[in-house]
Amino acid sequence: MAQPKFKQLERAYGFDEVSLVTGDTTINPNQVDINFTLGGLTFPMPILAAAMDAIVDPTFAIKFSNLGGLAVLNLEGVQTRYDKPDEILDRIAQTPETEVTALLQTIYSEPIKENLVGRCIEMIKKAGAVCAASVTPANAKRLSPIAKDAGIDVLIVQSTVTTARHISKSYRGLVLPELCQTMSLPVIIGNCCSYSAALELLRTGVDGIMVGVGPGAACTTREVTGVGVPQVTATIECAAARDSYFKETGKSTAVITDGGIRTGGDLCKSFAAGADAVMIGSPLAQSYEAPGNGYHWGMSHSHPALPRGTRIKVGRTAPVEQILFGPTSVTNGTQNLIGALRTSMGVCGARNIKEMHKVRMIIAPSIKTEGKYFQMTQLVP
Amino acid sequence: MAQPKFKQLERAYGFDEVSLVTGDTTINPNQVDINFTLGGLTFPMPILAAAMDAIVDPTFAIKFSNLGGLAVLNLEGVQTRYDKPDEILDRIAQTPETEVTALLQTIYSEPIKENLVGRCIEMIKKAGAVCAASVTPANAKRLSPIAKDAGIDVLIVQSTVTTARHISKSYRGLVLPELCQTMSLPVIIGNCCSYSAALELLRTGVDGIMVGVGPGAACTTREVTGVGVPQVTATIECAAARDSYFKETGKSTAVITDGGIRTGGDLCKSFAAGADAVMIGSPLAQSYEAPGNGYHWGMSHSHPALPRGTRIKVGRTAPVEQILFGPTSVTNGTQNLIGALRTSMGVCGARNIKEMHKVRMIIAPSIKTEGKYFQMTQLVP
Amino acid sequence: MAQPKFKQLERAYGFDEVSLVTGDTTINPNQVDINFTLGGLTFPMPILAAAMDAIVDPTFAIKFSNLGGLAVLNLEGVQTRYDKPDEILDRIAQTPETEVTALLQTIYSEPIKENLVGRCIEMIKKAGAVCAASVTPANAKRLSPIAKDAGIDVLIVQSTVTTARHISKSYRGLVLPELCQTMSLPVIIGNCCSYSAALELLRTGVDGIMVGVGPGAACTTREVTGVGVPQVTATIECAAARDSYFKETGKSTAVITDGGIRTGGDLCKSFAAGADAVMIGSPLAQSYEAPGNGYHWGMSHSHPALPRGTRIKVGRTAPVEQILFGPTSVTNGTQNLIGALRTSMGVCGARNIKEMHKVRMIIAPSIKTEGKYFQMTQLVP
Amino acid sequence: MAQPKFKQLERAYGFDEVSLVTGDTTINPNQVDINFTLGGLTFPMPILAAAMDAIVDPTFAIKFSNLGGLAVLNLEGVQTRYDKPDEILDRIAQTPETEVTALLQTIYSEPIKENLVGRCIEMIKKAGAVCAASVTPANAKRLSPIAKDAGIDVLIVQSTVTTARHISKSYRGLVLPELCQTMSLPVIIGNCCSYSAALELLRTGVDGIMVGVGPGAACTTREVTGVGVPQVTATIECAAARDSYFKETGKSTAVITDGGIRTGGDLCKSFAAGADAVMIGSPLAQSYEAPGNGYHWGMSHSHPALPRGTRIKVGRTAPVEQILFGPTSVTNGTQNLIGALRTSMGVCGARNIKEMHKVRMIIAPSIKTEGKYFQMTQLVP
Repeated sequence: MAQPKFKQLERAYGFDEVSLVTGDTTINPNQVDINFTLGGLTFPMPILAAAMDAIVDPTFAIKFSNLGGLAVLNLEGVQTRYDKPDEILDRIAQTPETEVTALLQTIYSEPIKENLVGRCIEMIKKAGAVCAASVTPANAKRLSPIAKDAGIDVLIVQSTVTTARHISKSYRGLVLPELCQTMSLPVIIGNCCSYSAALELLRTGVDGIMVGVGPGAACTTREVTGVGVPQVTATIECAAARDSYFKETGKSTAVITDGGIRTGGDLCKSFAAGADAVMIGSPLAQSYEAPGNGYHWGMSHSHPALPRGTRIKVGRTAPVEQILFGPTSVTNGTQNLIGALRTSMGVCGARNIKEMHKVRMIIAPSIKTEGKYFQMTQLVP
Repeated sequence: MAQPKFKQLERAYGFDEVSLVTGDTTINPNQVDINFTLGGLTFPMPILAAAMDAIVDPTFAIKFSNLGGLAVLNLEGVQTRYDKPDEILDRIAQTPETEVTALLQTIYSEPIKENLVGRCIEMIKKAGAVCAASVTPANAKRLSPIAKDAGIDVLIVQSTVTTARHISKSYRGLVLPELCQTMSLPVIIGNCCSYSAALELLRTGVDGIMVGVGPGAACTTREVTGVGVPQVTATIECAAARDSYFKETGKSTAVITDGGIRTGGDLCKSFAAGADAVMIGSPLAQSYEAPGNGYHWGMSHSHPALPRGTRIKVGRTAPVEQILFGPTSVTNGTQNLIGALRTSMGVCGARNIKEMHKVRMIIAPSIKTEGKYFQMTQLVP
Repeated sequence: MAQPKFKQLERAYGFDEVSLVTGDTTINPNQVDINFTLGGLTFPMPILAAAMDAIVDPTFAIKFSNLGGLAVLNLEGVQTRYDKPDEILDRIAQTPETEVTALLQTIYSEPIKENLVGRCIEMIKKAGAVCAASVTPANAKRLSPIAKDAGIDVLIVQSTVTTARHISKSYRGLVLPELCQTMSLPVIIGNCCSYSAALELLRTGVDGIMVGVGPGAACTTREVTGVGVPQVTATIECAAARDSYFKETGKSTAVITDGGIRTGGDLCKSFAAGADAVMIGSPLAQSYEAPGNGYHWGMSHSHPALPRGTRIKVGRTAPVEQILFGPTSVTNGTQNLIGALRTSMGVCGARNIKEMHKVRMIIAPSIKTEGKYFQMTQLVP
Repeated sequence: MAQPKFKQLERAYGFDEVSLVTGDTTINPNQVDINFTLGGLTFPMPILAAAMDAIVDPTFAIKFSNLGGLAVLNLEGVQTRYDKPDEILDRIAQTPETEVTALLQTIYSEPIKENLVGRCIEMIKKAGAVCAASVTPANAKRLSPIAKDAGIDVLIVQSTVTTARHISKSYRGLVLPELCQTMSLPVIIGNCCSYSAALELLRTGVDGIMVGVGPGAACTTREVTGVGVPQVTATIECAAARDSYFKETGKSTAVITDGGIRTGGDLCKSFAAGADAVMIGSPLAQSYEAPGNGYHWGMSHSHPALPRGTRIKVGRTAPVEQILFGPTSVTNGTQNLIGALRTSMGVCGARNIKEMHKVRMIIAPSIKTEGKYFQMTQLVP
């Protein structure tokens, strides 16, 4: 019987399925350029700290800015809902696994206090740090003017999935071109994960897009809703959108890979896939300075009716400076992330992030030789 | 040496191997339309409760109908073989794992009582609920008139595999066009799993087909007989048959994905593969209202000579209403299935089930970041 | 830099990676024809019992012949090296894992006694059973005349890998056309695993070929030498060679899949890949009648310098008749193999083995829903 | 929306993903030729012992040379940093897992003593053995003249990744053509893993290249930096570069697969992928003669700021002669490597290493039947 053409499925790839191929030239790691430019701002390090309560509070943001990165304060988290957020963070850490989702649902139902929004931002700015803050699309109109007045340098409008067009009867959707114009500072929007959605977002006039739906360590979006794109393919598609948009307009914009990065290897692969910067969560949640007390949880974990995610115990392993720059005696890729990036760029022959975008990447599922090796020696008498 | 063309094998995909890509538009989850139409009937929710003894008894059927779904009563299970089915169900729950297959073989060798068939259906109809009932092809001629007289609304003729043509010397096979004409109510037939078999079934005049051979949680058909088609590919092929049949005749028919759906994610992927509705088993077996006492088993588990399947302990986790509509504090995708479907359709930009059929689906093996993450932190001193 | 074409690798498939698709017609399992023809002989059941000491001794051979299959006696095993083989078999069963390879190396260094070869065969023939016996190529010239005189019905010349051409300085290789002519009874040769090697073997005039290198449960050939072809692809290629040879000569020959079959599912897939019969080991080693005392080991396990394989504890689970024909209460596919084959052919619409060769087969890695299911319920509070 | 062509990823393969197909001819294993030629030297065995402190000290190098192989002494390891290296090796073996990386960082920060370089080499030469020694590119200019004067036969310039061009401001890179000319003895350089980088290295005039980045048992390069190419694909590409270079110049050079080889199977696959010789580490670290006391660690494990690798307990299982030549009672592929190579070449019909390069190789993920088998029997009552 003649068959019609069935629905076609393309293959997508995640970090564990790819690796990088060394170049024909090698470069001294100290001589590679890892600057990151966003709108008019330039950062010496292409890393954003995730807008999560377990990672960024004002103190962490100041420290991270001093180290050259950009920490993003969540304007809808415990810092802006509670006068004494540390007490809340302690409670989260002390609640047993089986009760924590319900607790988070309660905690995040407390209203956001506009005065606390201002207080947090001013605290960061007063210390001379660069300040980025995130809001959801639903609250963008209300909170972004307050944040601007308090002095933020970068605004991030972020939800699990944000598109240039939103259909709703209950409220008039956020109009991104208007927002960009009003703010007159770099605006980043996210998250997205496909070429077409990324291109539509860029055309609204934003300076950067966040890439990543459903790949993060503290996220079960895919288990719950079936939605998720592995991060390498998502980044490749959105980077292609950035390049298309540059061809259309001549305007440079930034692709920021957000979610699922756990090691130096994942971070390096993000850049080879086309990222201009990465936003990381769990590697920083392990730092002594992170406010999560050795725990980590995602922001959709507290959805009142359909929570996604799990609280993960990550432990406290090292100061944030060591996690970023080493030196380290840990060999599993969770420390000295910048050293790893420089080494990777060096052996791949990439003098800067733009050249790293062109490094050859192959499909090569993780080998896990160690596990196997031990298994083998157990067979030996 | 020149080689002939060898036997060709195509790749097929299951739920865990695919995921959905978010759309270029997003929609408020409350504003997506999830109606399901079968023959002349319309249901507010595209979910059928599986015709299994651990899930549907008359009480459950009434409850499920009131919630907007369609529960299917198995007319060849304990409800129609035993006067006091609850005693039998208790015995199954109390029998140890190693003896349960033999017990099921005995239990299901008891003859079906025609008076009990009538009694069950009348009980459901008297409560004002919609009533669907299932029979095997071998018993369809005998039981379906009784069921019709008792007032069923939908007839399901179901065996592991049913085709439009059956070769047998011992009995004259069921003639489906005759059955459809005699019943003059919506008839669903199944299961099938390929384009050609689905199209032949549709051409007999049925209103819907059940899709799924060998993918369910309580089924070992593939281990025993080598037969089985992963559910995403099976649904894609059968949906293409529905579309071909619509082109041929202009008649709308329904594709119902049956088996292997354990989470909201699996359910959402079924619709994106082309299903008009899904039949679910194990998610509902976990409800307080399910008659299986926290256990779940398949109907081919009791085959007298070649049993397939295992009894699975699923536990009792929540009321069926919560499993379907939430709210929930469980984050693994087993509760708030309708909330998950609405959210998924919202982020994929699908305004109704027909648009969900067109959502982009990619091949993306499960990531299981959590497990890996923990493994990594264990390496950290 | 322009690259030359690199060495190409094709994908090969094993049992766990494929499954069968149901047909457009179904057939009553009792009405499918599963006869197997070899040379002039016809067997009611297409199953050979493997020429392994843990499975076939004269008593087992008689029983298996009475059930309709063809058991193959290894003429170079303990039955022909020892006057009291049962004592040897007991010693193997009682030796701890760490010492058993060394013990097997010693046991199989005992010379073969020609009088025992005759005695074993006569014992089988006296009982009225069909008798097949196997020899290695190196011993074929010496042992096959003795076996013929003692009355064997089928000769199998078998080593890990046998080709039509062998390069050696130390002895003149076995000339297969001569052997076939001298014996004037069905000759089977093996093992092979590719189209070209199979075709060359068939052209020597043999009646059948054994297919399988490195896929069996008690074999580590691939770990040790890197050599091995997954059984589905090996069978597909060798079946194509059989078909090519039939086109060349009009002579019917048999393809026998040997190794790696553990369940009814594996067995059914072998036929769908093109096998005319299967040789099975571990499923029969589990029978009460098998001489291995609940253990199973391969014949290359005793190689004096490079042993491959492991002794596996398979247990004793049922009489051989139940393993072949059921009924059973075991649901994992290890019992009622013939029932499984008939059911599989029935749902796939294959009236005989030749039609089973044409059944649609897809690539569909094992789903293992059970394991996953339990994992999920553990997450539920 | 029309999409541009996204970044393309090719699939790469490792040892566990491929296997070899038997030939149309078989050869007596004793009659295959396994000679290895490098520059003007010929070795009876195509195996190099890895330049790692756990494997090669002068005593081991002499033994290995007598057996026909080529052991490589690391001129930047404990043998040339410490007067009493055995004390250091004992300390490494006695330090607990959690402290060993820090210890290695300290141990390898001790300066290299030029007099010890000479002493080690002279000790090997005095015993009449062939002597190969390795240096890193950074130290090549300083140490290679000393090594030459002391009498080495083969020089290996090795770092994780070495290219023909290196960009650095701090020092003028090593000029390979100069080095080759000055040394006037066989020079091998590595490691590399792609066609283009391999070809550039060969064009500098070296006699051989080492292939392998990130695949070894004691290496976590890929986890840390994202870089790594599975060994089968890396070898196939570099062998193609050797063949291209031969076409360009008529000069024969050697491709040496280095890293990730744990069994006879891996070793055989390396040759089928195109290797002329292999360098092995962990299989030899298990020998009684290895100086690592039953432990094994990589040379990048001691990087002061970004250590990669883990110390692995491999145990001490047999004399090196038995590991290479058997006989053995171990069936997991870790002993009788040369017997395995001869057997593999025999069944694949390869009379020498060049013919082994042409053996058919297929993609066939590991089957692990044993594990599965046991799992199945556990289900049987």
